[in-house]
Amino acid sequence: MLTEIGEKARAAARILSLKSTEEKNRALSAAASALEENKDFIKTQNAIDLDAGKKSGLSEALLDRLSLTDERIAGMASGIRAVAELDDPVGRVLSEKVINGMRLVKTSVPIGVIAVIYESRPNVTADSAALCLKSGNTVILRGGKEAINSNLAVANVMRAAIEKTGLPADCIMLVPFTGREGAEALMKLNGYVDVLIPRGGRELISTVVKNSTVPVIETGAGVCHVYVDKAADVKMAADIVYNAKTSRPSVCNACECVLVHRDIAKEALLSIAAELRKKNVEIRGDAETLKILPDAVSADESDWGAEYNDFIIAVKIVGGISEAVEHIFRYGTAHSDCIVTEDAETAERFLNEVDSAAVYHNASTRFTDGGEFGLGAEIGISTQKLHARGPLGLNELTSVKYKAYGNGHIRATT
Amino acid sequence: MLTEIGEKARAAARILSLKSTEEKNRALSAAASALEENKDFIKTQNAIDLDAGKKSGLSEALLDRLSLTDERIAGMASGIRAVAELDDPVGRVLSEKVINGMRLVKTSVPIGVIAVIYESRPNVTADSAALCLKSGNTVILRGGKEAINSNLAVANVMRAAIEKTGLPADCIMLVPFTGREGAEALMKLNGYVDVLIPRGGRELISTVVKNSTVPVIETGAGVCHVYVDKAADVKMAADIVYNAKTSRPSVCNACECVLVHRDIAKEALLSIAAELRKKNVEIRGDAETLKILPDAVSADESDWGAEYNDFIIAVKIVGGISEAVEHIFRYGTAHSDCIVTEDAETAERFLNEVDSAAVYHNASTRFTDGGEFGLGAEIGISTQKLHARGPLGLNELTSVKYKAYGNGHIRATT
Repeated sequence: MLTEIGEKARAAARILSLKSTEEKNRALSAAASALEENKDFIKTQNAIDLDAGKKSGLSEALLDRLSLTDERIAGMASGIRAVAELDDPVGRVLSEKVINGMRLVKTSVPIGVIAVIYESRPNVTADSAALCLKSGNTVILRGGKEAINSNLAVANVMRAAIEKTGLPADCIMLVPFTGREGAEALMKLNGYVDVLIPRGGRELISTVVKNSTVPVIETGAGVCHVYVDKAADVKMAADIVYNAKTSRPSVCNACECVLVHRDIAKEALLSIAAELRKKNVEIRGDAETLKILPDAVSADESDWGAEYNDFIIAVKIVGGISEAVEHIFRYGTAHSDCIVTEDAETAERFLNEVDSAAVYHNASTRFTDGGEFGLGAEIGISTQKLHARGPLGLNELTSVKYKAYGNGHIRATT
Repeated sequence: MLTEIGEKARAAARILSLKSTEEKNRALSAAASALEENKDFIKTQNAIDLDAGKKSGLSEALLDRLSLTDERIAGMASGIRAVAELDDPVGRVLSEKVINGMRLVKTSVPIGVIAVIYESRPNVTADSAALCLKSGNTVILRGGKEAINSNLAVANVMRAAIEKTGLPADCIMLVPFTGREGAEALMKLNGYVDVLIPRGGRELISTVVKNSTVPVIETGAGVCHVYVDKAADVKMAADIVYNAKTSRPSVCNACECVLVHRDIAKEALLSIAAELRKKNVEIRGDAETLKILPDAVSADESDWGAEYNDFIIAVKIVGGISEAVEHIFRYGTAHSDCIVTEDAETAERFLNEVDSAAVYHNASTRFTDGGEFGLGAEIGISTQKLHARGPLGLNELTSVKYKAYGNGHIRATT
């Protein structure tokens, strides 16, 4: 059954890969309008999921993530329209050279078939489908079982709309069954799936990484640090920590741990704690921190490297940049890490020695984001080294092809 | 035990990633000289492998691949020196922009730890180690058991040499045991290995793809086609097929199948067959081909998509470009495919519709090679879409890092 989906996706990918920017944009625009026109149908299907969710005892937070309102449907549509306006990442000339009279052009091409496994938010369906379509890739979507009716509604409305504009409906495939076997089969669909992107929590990602035989782009888990150097502007440090922790604690680029230079610890921590108190952030400090902040909770080993995704932050006092870098190497996830300092040399050392997707001097870790980085949109943030690292925009959803133009060129025998 | 190797490799990678181009080149130069100076030791160790190989009945061809002579050791040394002369792929500025006053620089960084699993040729040890070192990556090598003493000798000589120049010896690690368990453990060394590159035959690659949980760059298998269009220059077609098939039949960019347009079949096939006869190439043709070439062997279904790696070629007559593209889609490996035609429009259609790493107009598929493409060297040819496609040069052995320079920048709350 999944093989059949894979075959259809692969066949659609061949057709889609040859479509022009205009054809793809027309399809996206039609899909956006169709979502708005069919909002009542979508809400009806969503209600089935919400009912089932209530019966099975889903938390209020999960039910909220699952719920589709007029506003959220309009949000999906405008997200799709925003993707249509982005530059087409396909057909870029990446390099061009002439070798013994043979012209060699390296161009960007679609990857082919992208599988996305995600959890409960149905807007990921529309968002992933739009990004893949714009980059000339067909998508195989596999959402969480609690959102199956909502996801099918969104995908089917989009499928019908793009088909009317002349694109194959199978450019957007949704796995219609939600058993664990479906996800596992998708992870092993070699020959059909060119890349699998998990979008969700740490457990989902780790399951995908462990079980996939198709290539995976690992996304997500972020244990981000802010190191406050002895040469830091203390007010700036407090502002950055406050922003990095509290502007959206549930996301991967939020700060989970502050490392503070011993020489500046008292002043910096009092200032940081005063900020964090505004949002009742729980501070879990090491023994030295507790002496400065007696109200803090005592941190244990499990706090280093913890991804709280909540209004909780770990604090540790360190002897200097070496100890900070070492701590980040040991406990970080190579996502986003920051140094606050007025000393440019120390900053550059930190930026070189900390091997994370994004490293910041005097700026919040929260900037690691496709939109903030000027990529227009993102399908996730890669925390692996292969293929792409950091925010995955449209360009990161392409591969390359070498086109060689000869005139009877043959290779010398060696 | 492998975890220990992984830990050492990861620790060395941190140090190596910060070394300058000069330091890396000095180490490479020392390693090259050390191989030449220690050639007697290396040959003694190689003799142990050769003896064991003879006793266990290795074929003459395999014994030849395994054997290290003065000339081959000099070849390894000059290969290392050539890598030293290539541009350093680390530290390139890939893009730079200023976003609300925050400067964002995307730079190239080493991947980290690269594992290479390969078969019998000991020169792959030196070659892989040099390419990884130049690109700032530590390497974990796992060669075939029949070459273990030769590989250990080469690796240990290089390790000692680079250590003398100030680099950690552990930049080059060789798995000293050759059981299947070693290879399998390496494939699952997540957290230590950033990418695994198999170098060898189809079976090795397929085992690696099936069993690895670390990211893999799939290399190698090449079922390359030459399509001779009705508008082809027949002599050019014969020259290209002859070169693509016979200049080195054992490699992945050699041609395995010729597709010929029906309208030109008789003239083209007689001309192609006359060339191929010079090297006694066995032609396996479909029924129509046999009518034109009665001496040809009758092809069966298993000939389409076969990678002969030998002086054998499959031939099929097709109705036109659509059938040719369809055949390549169905039986090809998306490695290298060629069209011979004087019609530029048909050529462009072929180059767009055939989704292979390299597509050729009027040129031999044998050009798909890091050296020929001007990359200087290659560690393999990727046949996957992710990370890199086509020849893997030094640039393809790097990842990226975003460095952001702010001045107290915090992200607006949305």
